[in-house]
Amino acid sequence: MRVEDIFHQPPPPNEHPCWEDPVLPSVLKRILPESVLQAIEPDLTRLGHDLINIVRPLAAQVRLPTITHYNAWGERIDLLQTSEGWRTLKNLAVKEGYISNAYERKYHEYSRVYMFAKCMMMTGDFHVIMCPFGMTDGAARLIELFGNERMKDEILPRLISRDPADSYLCGQWMTESPGGSDVSRTETKATPTTTSSTDLGAAYLLDGFKWFSSAAEGNMSVALARTGDLASGSGALSLFVVPIRFQSFPTPLSNNIQIHRLKDKVGTHGVPTAELSLNSARGWLIGGLNEGVKTIAPMLNITRIHSAIHSIGSLQRCLSIARSYATVRTVAGGKLLESIPLHMENLANITILYAALTHFTFGAVSLLGKSECNVATREEQARLRLLTPAVKGFTALKAVTAMEECMAALGGQGYMEETGFGRLIRDAMVEKIWEGTVDVMALDLIRATRDGYTLESFCQWAAKIISRSPVKSDALLLLQDVINQLPSLFRENF
Amino acid sequence: MRVEDIFHQPPPPNEHPCWEDPVLPSVLKRILPESVLQAIEPDLTRLGHDLINIVRPLAAQVRLPTITHYNAWGERIDLLQTSEGWRTLKNLAVKEGYISNAYERKYHEYSRVYMFAKCMMMTGDFHVIMCPFGMTDGAARLIELFGNERMKDEILPRLISRDPADSYLCGQWMTESPGGSDVSRTETKATPTTTSSTDLGAAYLLDGFKWFSSAAEGNMSVALARTGDLASGSGALSLFVVPIRFQSFPTPLSNNIQIHRLKDKVGTHGVPTAELSLNSARGWLIGGLNEGVKTIAPMLNITRIHSAIHSIGSLQRCLSIARSYATVRTVAGGKLLESIPLHMENLANITILYAALTHFTFGAVSLLGKSECNVATREEQARLRLLTPAVKGFTALKAVTAMEECMAALGGQGYMEETGFGRLIRDAMVEKIWEGTVDVMALDLIRATRDGYTLESFCQWAAKIISRSPVKSDALLLLQDVINQLPSLFRENF
Amino acid sequence: MRVEDIFHQPPPPNEHPCWEDPVLPSVLKRILPESVLQAIEPDLTRLGHDLINIVRPLAAQVRLPTITHYNAWGERIDLLQTSEGWRTLKNLAVKEGYISNAYERKYHEYSRVYMFAKCMMMTGDFHVIMCPFGMTDGAARLIELFGNERMKDEILPRLISRDPADSYLCGQWMTESPGGSDVSRTETKATPTTTSSTDLGAAYLLDGFKWFSSAAEGNMSVALARTGDLASGSGALSLFVVPIRFQSFPTPLSNNIQIHRLKDKVGTHGVPTAELSLNSARGWLIGGLNEGVKTIAPMLNITRIHSAIHSIGSLQRCLSIARSYATVRTVAGGKLLESIPLHMENLANITILYAALTHFTFGAVSLLGKSECNVATREEQARLRLLTPAVKGFTALKAVTAMEECMAALGGQGYMEETGFGRLIRDAMVEKIWEGTVDVMALDLIRATRDGYTLESFCQWAAKIISRSPVKSDALLLLQDVINQLPSLFRENF
Amino acid sequence: MRVEDIFHQPPPPNEHPCWEDPVLPSVLKRILPESVLQAIEPDLTRLGHDLINIVRPLAAQVRLPTITHYNAWGERIDLLQTSEGWRTLKNLAVKEGYISNAYERKYHEYSRVYMFAKCMMMTGDFHVIMCPFGMTDGAARLIELFGNERMKDEILPRLISRDPADSYLCGQWMTESPGGSDVSRTETKATPTTTSSTDLGAAYLLDGFKWFSSAAEGNMSVALARTGDLASGSGALSLFVVPIRFQSFPTPLSNNIQIHRLKDKVGTHGVPTAELSLNSARGWLIGGLNEGVKTIAPMLNITRIHSAIHSIGSLQRCLSIARSYATVRTVAGGKLLESIPLHMENLANITILYAALTHFTFGAVSLLGKSECNVATREEQARLRLLTPAVKGFTALKAVTAMEECMAALGGQGYMEETGFGRLIRDAMVEKIWEGTVDVMALDLIRATRDGYTLESFCQWAAKIISRSPVKSDALLLLQDVINQLPSLFRENF
Repeated sequence: MRVEDIFHQPPPPNEHPCWEDPVLPSVLKRILPESVLQAIEPDLTRLGHDLINIVRPLAAQVRLPTITHYNAWGERIDLLQTSEGWRTLKNLAVKEGYISNAYERKYHEYSRVYMFAKCMMMTGDFHVIMCPFGMTDGAARLIELFGNERMKDEILPRLISRDPADSYLCGQWMTESPGGSDVSRTETKATPTTTSSTDLGAAYLLDGFKWFSSAAEGNMSVALARTGDLASGSGALSLFVVPIRFQSFPTPLSNNIQIHRLKDKVGTHGVPTAELSLNSARGWLIGGLNEGVKTIAPMLNITRIHSAIHSIGSLQRCLSIARSYATVRTVAGGKLLESIPLHMENLANITILYAALTHFTFGAVSLLGKSECNVATREEQARLRLLTPAVKGFTALKAVTAMEECMAALGGQGYMEETGFGRLIRDAMVEKIWEGTVDVMALDLIRATRDGYTLESFCQWAAKIISRSPVKSDALLLLQDVINQLPSLFRENF
Repeated sequence: MRVEDIFHQPPPPNEHPCWEDPVLPSVLKRILPESVLQAIEPDLTRLGHDLINIVRPLAAQVRLPTITHYNAWGERIDLLQTSEGWRTLKNLAVKEGYISNAYERKYHEYSRVYMFAKCMMMTGDFHVIMCPFGMTDGAARLIELFGNERMKDEILPRLISRDPADSYLCGQWMTESPGGSDVSRTETKATPTTTSSTDLGAAYLLDGFKWFSSAAEGNMSVALARTGDLASGSGALSLFVVPIRFQSFPTPLSNNIQIHRLKDKVGTHGVPTAELSLNSARGWLIGGLNEGVKTIAPMLNITRIHSAIHSIGSLQRCLSIARSYATVRTVAGGKLLESIPLHMENLANITILYAALTHFTFGAVSLLGKSECNVATREEQARLRLLTPAVKGFTALKAVTAMEECMAALGGQGYMEETGFGRLIRDAMVEKIWEGTVDVMALDLIRATRDGYTLESFCQWAAKIISRSPVKSDALLLLQDVINQLPSLFRENF
Repeated sequence: MRVEDIFHQPPPPNEHPCWEDPVLPSVLKRILPESVLQAIEPDLTRLGHDLINIVRPLAAQVRLPTITHYNAWGERIDLLQTSEGWRTLKNLAVKEGYISNAYERKYHEYSRVYMFAKCMMMTGDFHVIMCPFGMTDGAARLIELFGNERMKDEILPRLISRDPADSYLCGQWMTESPGGSDVSRTETKATPTTTSSTDLGAAYLLDGFKWFSSAAEGNMSVALARTGDLASGSGALSLFVVPIRFQSFPTPLSNNIQIHRLKDKVGTHGVPTAELSLNSARGWLIGGLNEGVKTIAPMLNITRIHSAIHSIGSLQRCLSIARSYATVRTVAGGKLLESIPLHMENLANITILYAALTHFTFGAVSLLGKSECNVATREEQARLRLLTPAVKGFTALKAVTAMEECMAALGGQGYMEETGFGRLIRDAMVEKIWEGTVDVMALDLIRATRDGYTLESFCQWAAKIISRSPVKSDALLLLQDVINQLPSLFRENF
Repeated sequence: MRVEDIFHQPPPPNEHPCWEDPVLPSVLKRILPESVLQAIEPDLTRLGHDLINIVRPLAAQVRLPTITHYNAWGERIDLLQTSEGWRTLKNLAVKEGYISNAYERKYHEYSRVYMFAKCMMMTGDFHVIMCPFGMTDGAARLIELFGNERMKDEILPRLISRDPADSYLCGQWMTESPGGSDVSRTETKATPTTTSSTDLGAAYLLDGFKWFSSAAEGNMSVALARTGDLASGSGALSLFVVPIRFQSFPTPLSNNIQIHRLKDKVGTHGVPTAELSLNSARGWLIGGLNEGVKTIAPMLNITRIHSAIHSIGSLQRCLSIARSYATVRTVAGGKLLESIPLHMENLANITILYAALTHFTFGAVSLLGKSECNVATREEQARLRLLTPAVKGFTALKAVTAMEECMAALGGQGYMEETGFGRLIRDAMVEKIWEGTVDVMALDLIRATRDGYTLESFCQWAAKIISRSPVKSDALLLLQDVINQLPSLFRENF
């Protein structure tokens, strides 16, 4: 008995991540004008083929980053090295316009839909690239909204560049050890200096310790720091642009920043997440003094959409493998797995969930696109505000369990690393946590409804939708009831 | 700013895995006579302390096993080496009587409850030790039921030994590449020989390729092989005892067995799972010729209970960490996390699920104990038959998602490997797959009801239970209805 | 006491690998006409800077290659993956013209001196690139001498290409397990086929097992195989061109070749060395039938020169570090290490050895250049033949111990991996073994003298050299005496 | 062609490390009285078998130690973990009486010969265990000579214990970054405290940074620190006993010591060598104030003998493999390698060197034994003083190159890690550096001759030896001449 002679399961064929998906084409058709859809079709087609042929094989090269604290001669260097695969993916994502597709606004208010459709297609093979790129996206928006001229001239073009040699990645440093996601307890202090060392404005010196710093390999970060006393809580926080590896700064991490350790995370293994200390690192104020929390809000809304896209994109990939496997695996009697009703019922249930989450998310994406192009109505602005935490929290809540069902649909093969479920699930688990847990989202949802208008206009909109729906019933009353009980019902009944 | 000077979160204190658990004491109190509970109490108390002080720190030493196929001189050796931590855990489990507690039957029909209570306590820190030990348990039962005298004298005492120097581990080799969990397509052939090389009886020579072979480090295995033609399906399969590393056999894997590779699994990293080829490996028949599927059934029932225990034990550990963390983590305003209602509502919901799964599982355990001591009524035998696949499938279906909620209850810290959730979740994911997926369990549940008696007697029993319950209502009708729709409702509504 | 505050040794500055070397400029000046020296000077200058700035930092990316034998679905794939650093180095070496500098013959008979001067400069930072490239060099020479037209048209241009996308690497498969370096015991059989599958000629099918197969990542190999019976020893061996990854062949290793394992070597860690089985792999005859040993000889002579260059280039790098370190390290009394006589005496002794080995080696290189351009006299041809094994064996015998002295010249710092000595020494150790041990070289030296002419002409040449030297004495008599005792004196007294 | 079917070289048989060695038995016979030899013979026999059967297979478990700087919650812990193999070897060495054989003095002045004969036998398989144990040996001697009563009662018995549960390992912290081996530039300061915290005497607080700290896993260390100003050089250094993990101290490394990193060494991979900072670590004076250099001298003399034993023991093992291989490897014509004169001439040359180094070293060992038992004459004391640096430096200078010749004697197989040469050579390379380079030894040799008596008495002794020798000649004059030129001749002509 030679292993060469035994049965080998034919591998499941690769599906096109857009056109062979059961949901994405209908989402695009529903939202986009036909002209836009026709315009982007060739790019989506090409991207799908590139994902299968070029990107997917890079998976084996994505490994843990490493940190070397000292050189041979005893000098502290904090040399951070990411893996070959990760660096290749970053360059490919820049070239693909992962962020710039949104900022070039070639398709006006539909640009965000186009951009996030590509992001979703890329999710399965890009190993959580949305982490640094989502933050970069948010930072670009902040500079667009609040940056000074110099920032708009020097930094913004690099954040949205399509040229890897020229582009900047940006991190977001909020979390500190005592407060966790509660920024009101931020301890990092920012001290103003009198002289302006660059055209970015008068520099502050930041001192503190940031506990979860993703994109530690990036070129810059935005960081919350205290510009008043601790008792003032989040009312004395300001937001700063902090260079890490600017072309105009001499050496890596020379901005008085130390990497204490790389986090030993359950997933997102290509991404270097660090504990950092700022030891009088220079930073430049963005937005108003003591208005840090308000200033950073648009960034958080963008990263939360990225998070939702990561959840549904990960589920998409798992479901695709499971669906594809059912077309090549034979079971008793020589029948294909796809002919077994019980098996297909399972996949159908997952598909329904996947469809719901995808339409839900792209609803918010569509509103974001309108908002950024200033064509959103007041009602749409309010709806976007309400839906953003809901989309982020709900996709995170539902996607991983469904992915685990897809894994089980391959039996023992699903539990092998080579089929990819393990990595996808480990990575997707972070979405319940990153950028705010489900509880944090639920509380943000309440906060969004406090103005009186947001909730009311949402209910009116929902009533209209429901009245148009074939399944009318008493859903409207139920909806009102449900909303009244937010957020304790958030988890189970949203 | 020195890292030494920053805030360090005090670590969550360790809870006693039995007495500080919110469910296990009440389960034991409900099932066990007071005399038995008093007798085992000191052992459970000591075990809890040993788990915290001795076993838990071993985690860092549990690593992937390695295989060396050739020695320096080109000879094929297939040298399998497991990690220090894994070897230590195995020895500790043997000394703890992981299996022998059940077979010594010191507490008669309650021995299984005692034994599985210990197994459950150990789950969180024993890194899927239930995999090889569960199969060893099943093999012990097979020999008790069907083994010849020589097997009972030579092998059984080692399978249930408390002495690591003397004990045997046993694997279970069923899965083959073409058929997966469908044993009817087993290709491995067994050819009888005329001479008896040992007192175990006349040997067969087995030739084939086993695709998932857990416990590849073990001393023996039970293996299904074909003793008739392929067209006869599972009706021409017999069961064999196959030595790997018997004391009476000269060298490792000398029984004409080759390890082709170790599986690259998503979890259960300490456990060596292999692809094996049998190249005229000697095996001895256990049970009747061509009755392999029937013979192995008692083993599968036992490993399924082990699987359920692993699911609930893993959830127990995750919930314990989350509960404990809430007692030391402060949030805004200096309040402890355990004083935040929204947070505690989440933990309470998980606890309700955990309680339900634990009572459910130990109900089956209690029946197993009675059955093995021959004090089970016919109705109890039938109920055990019905519940075994349900317990296995349902715990697997529900535990992991709840564990992921526990992880998120620590925020970013939960996603760090050091807090342990990642490993526990990766390991527990296997339970949806190992020993039969949820679909396989559902189909087995139907099979169990085919005799007419099993389902009817179960409904009568359930009706009696429900009628005693304060929430009488129309639950009985619902139950009948639900059962009629088995198994399509299995996943969602069981 | 913070580590940031303690003393850090300033790192030793980088010396230019040619112009700051104490020996290489004088070698080039002695051998090359001034016009050639002027012509190549800018290239050597640039290369030196590139080595320091571009190539040296790649060291951390050179790691062990990996082999994956099976894909997820059980199919044998033997996927060989080399490290990022190694792949980058290979591409850089191709672009640098590592081989093509010799074959373009831009500087006529001096092309080899130019080419090997560059190879020597590159040695310290190219991690044994000479292994696959040296064999590729030899293969190019074989095809130049013995290849058919098709080989000259299709293969030769790729072997000497400067374009990484287009170039071929070639291995050399001689060693088998029973015979080691004794090719007379080659067991691999070549069976002729009647049909010609390509224009390379009628194919043979090769079956056998090659024990040390360097450049397993290459595109082709030359392999010795038996075309007569075993009793005929090396008289029944022929040489074959064996494709591995030709552009005209479909998939990696598709030529019926299996990689059984990658060798676990003491050094040369970037290089994938494999145990290979040929299972009816196609090969094409090069050179005459049953004339394999004679045919391969020019290849061996070239790889032996590469070996010598690797020995002296490795010593050059170690000596450079030690010399440079002495200019920055202060000792008692604040004096620099370079002012301590005892220390500098050690370095001077090593430098004398290094100078001798370098002049010795480039003497042979110069003759090789003449020979390849057909301007060598009969006496020079004979001298090249005699010196080739001597140069290879003697540099290997002397270099490593001198490198270890350089390591010790940095004290404890020399024993740290970061300073590079460990890697250089481990790699250089292979030169005592690879392409024939010192004993094999000694025996080849005897073989070279058997024709009567070679030894006599060498002695006359040597006598002339000595008579010109200021230290005339009775060296001539000694020389005669020494040569008479070859090779038992080879090791101790050459 | 299956790999199972190809030729496998039979592995070289294991030789008994004492009785089958070509030199050690004659050394023991020459030095020891017959009664002692008879008494120790069974122990040496047993040890040899244990080395082959128990210790040698542990090699695969000796790996790099790891350091974890922070726990999950951000607290600095500097958790040092050594590999399973290394821990097992340490325990075996303690049980074997690696150190205690010398201090129990069961065989009076011959105890050191007995003890070091065992150490030498163990060298090949104990992975540089001499590093921490040699320092522990030296520390035991220091306490025997200079310790207070409390140190003799509490510490000494643990340093020479045979019980792993009870024994202490001791490091030696001298080297600092600025001075390297030049202790006169020691910067670590010791500040006296007024109160005595333990019975060891009044504590000092040590502050500084130690650059090479071997045995970082140990229980204590002896450390040089400055008790006067820097200008006083080595005249203001004192020696301190510094606890790391005493049973009376609460937690690992609690004595205000931080491990900044583990050294990335070329060899000695099992041994944790660290960069340490002392941040007011408590230490207790041993020997006189400001007499640190004088106090530590006996320790250095002992560690230097250990170093020499490591050099010759490593060579012994390499030579044994090469010799053994020659008995099983066949070459052309079916002859064994051991029948090839050229090959055996090489091995004979190495054996002569090995014999010389072994007799040389054990001469010093014999004198050390006499000295410690107070039976050495003044002339023998002087000779021991003179020979100690010579033995250390000379064995280091000669052993590695000879080991590399042994490696090459196996051809390509010697370059494979599995045959062990690589590890042995990497480890032995440290002996040219550790405890003083050859230059430092040479300078110490001069220092030893400064008293006028030492050199003269040595020459008289040497003259006597030479006059007894059959090869009288004018060796005596030569000797006188050579000694006059010490140490410039040390390296080349000793």
